[in-house]
Amino acid sequence: MLTFWQDYPEIQNKLKDVQALMIERLKINNQEIEAALEKFASRGGKMVRPALFLLFAGIVPNGSKDEEKIIKIAASLEMLHSATLIHDDIIDDSPLRRGLPSIESQFGKDVAVYAGDFVYTVYFELLIETMNGTSFVAKNAQSMKKILQGELTQMQSAFDKNNTARRYMKAISGKTAELLSLSCLEGVYFAGGDKKLQHSARKIGRAIGLAFQVYDDILNFTVGLDEADKPILTDFRQGIYTLPLLLAREVNDEAIAPYLEAPENLSRQECLDLAELVTESGGIAGALLVAGRLTELALNEIRKLPESTNRQILEEATQILLERNY
Amino acid sequence: MLTFWQDYPEIQNKLKDVQALMIERLKINNQEIEAALEKFASRGGKMVRPALFLLFAGIVPNGSKDEEKIIKIAASLEMLHSATLIHDDIIDDSPLRRGLPSIESQFGKDVAVYAGDFVYTVYFELLIETMNGTSFVAKNAQSMKKILQGELTQMQSAFDKNNTARRYMKAISGKTAELLSLSCLEGVYFAGGDKKLQHSARKIGRAIGLAFQVYDDILNFTVGLDEADKPILTDFRQGIYTLPLLLAREVNDEAIAPYLEAPENLSRQECLDLAELVTESGGIAGALLVAGRLTELALNEIRKLPESTNRQILEEATQILLERNY
Repeated sequence: MLTFWQDYPEIQNKLKDVQALMIERLKINNQEIEAALEKFASRGGKMVRPALFLLFAGIVPNGSKDEEKIIKIAASLEMLHSATLIHDDIIDDSPLRRGLPSIESQFGKDVAVYAGDFVYTVYFELLIETMNGTSFVAKNAQSMKKILQGELTQMQSAFDKNNTARRYMKAISGKTAELLSLSCLEGVYFAGGDKKLQHSARKIGRAIGLAFQVYDDILNFTVGLDEADKPILTDFRQGIYTLPLLLAREVNDEAIAPYLEAPENLSRQECLDLAELVTESGGIAGALLVAGRLTELALNEIRKLPESTNRQILEEATQILLERNY
Repeated sequence: MLTFWQDYPEIQNKLKDVQALMIERLKINNQEIEAALEKFASRGGKMVRPALFLLFAGIVPNGSKDEEKIIKIAASLEMLHSATLIHDDIIDDSPLRRGLPSIESQFGKDVAVYAGDFVYTVYFELLIETMNGTSFVAKNAQSMKKILQGELTQMQSAFDKNNTARRYMKAISGKTAELLSLSCLEGVYFAGGDKKLQHSARKIGRAIGLAFQVYDDILNFTVGLDEADKPILTDFRQGIYTLPLLLAREVNDEAIAPYLEAPENLSRQECLDLAELVTESGGIAGALLVAGRLTELALNEIRKLPESTNRQILEEATQILLERNY
């Protein structure tokens, strides 16, 4: 929700422009898909990727001010993210996305496959309009590949009893951190920032991305446990073993291993028992430690950036973004 | 099968290079997907798109000879085609593709979604390596969009009793003709051919594409009717109403309309009856006439091209490609 940015009207306004551009570009000769995509883009989520891009563009001293181009590139990042989400929901059979029915659950996998493909082409067009001829077109293709490879690593590791924390980090590094890293890097690059600033941006984006995903995966073991009508441990029951579980297994595998026999068939009570086990075995605390360190790493780097209002916002937003309720 | 080109060793050899490049580029950190894609690329089909591209590159007088680039662009066209096929098979639940189990039927829709996405990224990379900074990157994005819109028009028209020949032509114009047209155009353009030659190439590609698809759709009503173990009228039973049926309805709707009530439930005998009805009502003859005219249009334009061995091959190949068994 763009309300996430309500205390930062300058960023919020730019994100509204990004959203408007997205909706304009998602017009297609299929009313059903157009309506679904418009709803999807209007909902927007926190728009973390374009927001990071805009903030980093804003920290470059005497940065270039081609607003139209900046908004288009910001939109391209959210388009790439949206396309991957739409296709991921097919894989996960997700009923919900951003609090709304996912495109797949609403219109079926047929529409979802093509809708995702369509969003990729719009992303592609935005790149061509803004960076054709630069090395960043290739960088985008590489990122797209890394994101996919991250998804594949995760899919390949599903239900794998031998999955490790190391493989988990590799998967989320592609799946989540790559695009956040690209968003920060592009912000600096297209505002004309130097190599040193580009390097910091990449590093910060990567750390935020990893921390963001680890926190997200912690939530899957801690949130909604007392709401009897909501599905819980959704990732685990799909065979996606994330950091809290993997760390817990390292100290208490004997008790946890039986749950990995048929995760898809766990009863609600068994899920609650497992969540408790993961907490008791230090899985949550361990994952929080990892996420906390990554957050600190990001914040330390952010504090070294040139001073500006945007740096201030970046610091605050990183803290808020990575500060969840447990 | 590349045997289609066995009488033209020069083209066949280049297509082998294209195939080898594709296999090289389809390496990915997932053995299952890599194996599936390698099999897919090795089988190859007729490789009509890269073949047309190569033939058109070959008719440009004193055309440029950057072989590496030419092979890469040829591969990009087949990559785009492959990506759309892989995703189409998800929509159609196709059991077979090129005589082998489709990626979706072999590995499930999850793998097929990501495998298709991956092939899109490889396609994208090949474009960047060969045409970054030119207007042809945008042209490719436009074509990709048109192809998708063609697929969507077809999907939207599925089971629609009011589908028309006009809407059918629009769908196949995107779904099939667009990419063949782009293949021919790129052949001329990247060999350095002038505007006039580029215009002819586009036109020829489009006519071949339309004729090719109409013939293909005729086959769905005429082939395999006496082989009791093979599924027949597969398109019709999925609600895809193609030219032979649409033309037949124009003269004999009363007899045909009842079959459109529940096409997915037709018995084998009912399918045979419908095929006969379509033939008797002139649907096959009418569609053959359309395809024949498009073929003539293509051949007439081809005969106006600068004389060369490749023009000769192009003429013969067009005839063979569009000469089917009824």
